[in-house]
Amino acid sequence: MAAKKQKLNGNMIIAQSGGPTVVINQSLVGAVLEAKKHKEIKKIYGSLHGLKGILEENLCDLGKESKANLELVAQTPSSALGSVRKKPTPEDCQKVFEVLRKYDIRYFFYIGGNDSAETTHIINEAAIAAGYEMKCFHICKTIDNDLRENDHTPGFGSAAKFVAQAFMGDNLDNRALPGVKINVIMGRHAGFLTAASALARQYPDDGPHLIYLPERPFSMEKFVADVQGVYQKLGRCVVAVSEGIADENGEAIASKFIKEVDSHGNVQLSGSGALGDLLAKEIKEKAQISRVRADTFGYLQRSFAGVASAVDQKEARAAGAAAVKFACGGEYANGSTAIKRAPGKKYMTWIERTELKNVAKETRHMPDEWIAPSGNDVTKAFIAYVAPIVGPLPKIGRLKVYKVAKK
Amino acid sequence: MAAKKQKLNGNMIIAQSGGPTVVINQSLVGAVLEAKKHKEIKKIYGSLHGLKGILEENLCDLGKESKANLELVAQTPSSALGSVRKKPTPEDCQKVFEVLRKYDIRYFFYIGGNDSAETTHIINEAAIAAGYEMKCFHICKTIDNDLRENDHTPGFGSAAKFVAQAFMGDNLDNRALPGVKINVIMGRHAGFLTAASALARQYPDDGPHLIYLPERPFSMEKFVADVQGVYQKLGRCVVAVSEGIADENGEAIASKFIKEVDSHGNVQLSGSGALGDLLAKEIKEKAQISRVRADTFGYLQRSFAGVASAVDQKEARAAGAAAVKFACGGEYANGSTAIKRAPGKKYMTWIERTELKNVAKETRHMPDEWIAPSGNDVTKAFIAYVAPIVGPLPKIGRLKVYKVAKK
Repeated sequence: MAAKKQKLNGNMIIAQSGGPTVVINQSLVGAVLEAKKHKEIKKIYGSLHGLKGILEENLCDLGKESKANLELVAQTPSSALGSVRKKPTPEDCQKVFEVLRKYDIRYFFYIGGNDSAETTHIINEAAIAAGYEMKCFHICKTIDNDLRENDHTPGFGSAAKFVAQAFMGDNLDNRALPGVKINVIMGRHAGFLTAASALARQYPDDGPHLIYLPERPFSMEKFVADVQGVYQKLGRCVVAVSEGIADENGEAIASKFIKEVDSHGNVQLSGSGALGDLLAKEIKEKAQISRVRADTFGYLQRSFAGVASAVDQKEARAAGAAAVKFACGGEYANGSTAIKRAPGKKYMTWIERTELKNVAKETRHMPDEWIAPSGNDVTKAFIAYVAPIVGPLPKIGRLKVYKVAKK
Repeated sequence: MAAKKQKLNGNMIIAQSGGPTVVINQSLVGAVLEAKKHKEIKKIYGSLHGLKGILEENLCDLGKESKANLELVAQTPSSALGSVRKKPTPEDCQKVFEVLRKYDIRYFFYIGGNDSAETTHIINEAAIAAGYEMKCFHICKTIDNDLRENDHTPGFGSAAKFVAQAFMGDNLDNRALPGVKINVIMGRHAGFLTAASALARQYPDDGPHLIYLPERPFSMEKFVADVQGVYQKLGRCVVAVSEGIADENGEAIASKFIKEVDSHGNVQLSGSGALGDLLAKEIKEKAQISRVRADTFGYLQRSFAGVASAVDQKEARAAGAAAVKFACGGEYANGSTAIKRAPGKKYMTWIERTELKNVAKETRHMPDEWIAPSGNDVTKAFIAYVAPIVGPLPKIGRLKVYKVAKK
């Protein structure tokens, strides 16, 4: 009789970290419902506000949640367990282990972006160093879509849908009352979300007419000239600008105006209208166009209730479930979930396990082939990439405008 | 044999004015489809960009539009004919008549707010003075919900739905990553839209926790104290602020920072993050709370694609159709459409004809009984008023959070 593989019996803990998304609870619920299928997983703990909840032993019993309530939570935006932006110090990690050991945690799941993958990696290393057997998995999430190894990340599709629908309406608003409209979109170093604004275009003259990404150096002179060019042609101009745009020296345009920095060393770019107002002022003064407006989409992009991509919801759920399957499969002691996609036109995705270090720290950026040579637009290849992730969008109607001859 | 009432034969023109809404094209299409039923209406012209289109003889033939295309346009946000913020001078009015007479216009419809009602009134007066028989009707519209005679106005319900869904998500975002979040909402003199943020509340501790309306003098000291109070109690605070908040002397808080003024003498309040940033700065400095963010919802509130109130869509359509019915009924030569509502719990509305002067110029404000005595919240009576106008909202799930005893 063949030796039966020994299963790792113990408790599980799961936490959410970083910026919330509209589908982050799908991953949570996906993981919890999958965990309930595995007998080696005893208690299913949730940590409130990420690692902070472990450090403070502020835990809840997710195993007691009803399926009906979990399903309602899954449909609800923003991290149901609460989130945190704290990066653990070596001392924090030591304390995390004391707690994990005390609660007999053998399955650790952390839903978040690259910072959270790094945190998971640190904890996994510490567990190994301590000779404590524990499965450590990171579950991919970020509206920025900047995780390596992933074709795209849970949360991005829904945020991109919000941005696209916002631009659809805003383009029509600008068409009705012409002028220059600048919209500032989230994305510190990666322009994916800003680029998704291009999905708003349904007619040849639809905006956004210009798209500025952090992947290309931003020149104020070129920006003013670009806007003037579109305005002269169409009598109006809608612009999508990433909050993370930086000059040729890599200095963020916004950083000259906003001082707050979080514990990861990131300048606060969201939750302020300063960048949009700055750009609008430049256009008013330099391009001498009087009606110039700026909106900063802000936190609505990641948390707006009622606008989710169905594909995104499904994939976020699958990522959560996959992490538990990988952990319980016995093949891997740790890793991260990565969304993979089949090449070709037919949209098909699946979740693979990848090494934590492949996702941690470094992020990915918009590849060159998705950015127009002009540096102020995206390519058709990007549209083909992003459209199925976002799914169907409202159809925009236009009057045919049968012109009446002047009398 | 009784004398048969003489019908006024001639052409019709319709135009859209002021800020776009998500349902303003419902009113346009409602009017056009109704006009097609009346034989006395010959040509159905649309004027591009409000009165500007008449002044420049920039007209289109709406009678040639297919019903299918009109239905698609009806579902589309923002003024399909284009809009304008220009208030006609007496010279403009003279020129308008020359054009109207030249095109044998006998039915004039103007979709807009109180400024547009005033414009319609001026044109009607000029028509009478010129001895030119013409039916002049204003069709109610404004997200601000500030038209007199109306229980509520087309456009408000959808904008309120957007605001409510935005706050639902933002409250959850703030709950996940606690701090102070300030959201600036459109509404120059009337707080209805800001007040609608209260619809986001589904649990007792849900935000918005504080609501500031232009109907109550805004004191920076009280604001800081209010926020501190909520923050001390809940560890977080979500605030809804109307862009039009003013101090005890009636000076707009924003006006100290924003200079641009439109041709109606209104200070530009939207399309800038200045007010939100100012308020956030005050809280950071005076309340010594570090995580403070501000978002200004901006134009998304009035034009976002894909979030419309079904009730609002239906009523906007009905208002457009009603204006044509009133004009063709023979009973009235002019007027405005007003949405009336039956008293009591059962939601039932209809469109009445009212005098142009009853809607023009002056606007209405939140009545006292809908504002909490504290001056920083709304009452249950307001919720009962606004909920059926907005219609169903997403249901928010929460974990039950079965706390685990500390070991």
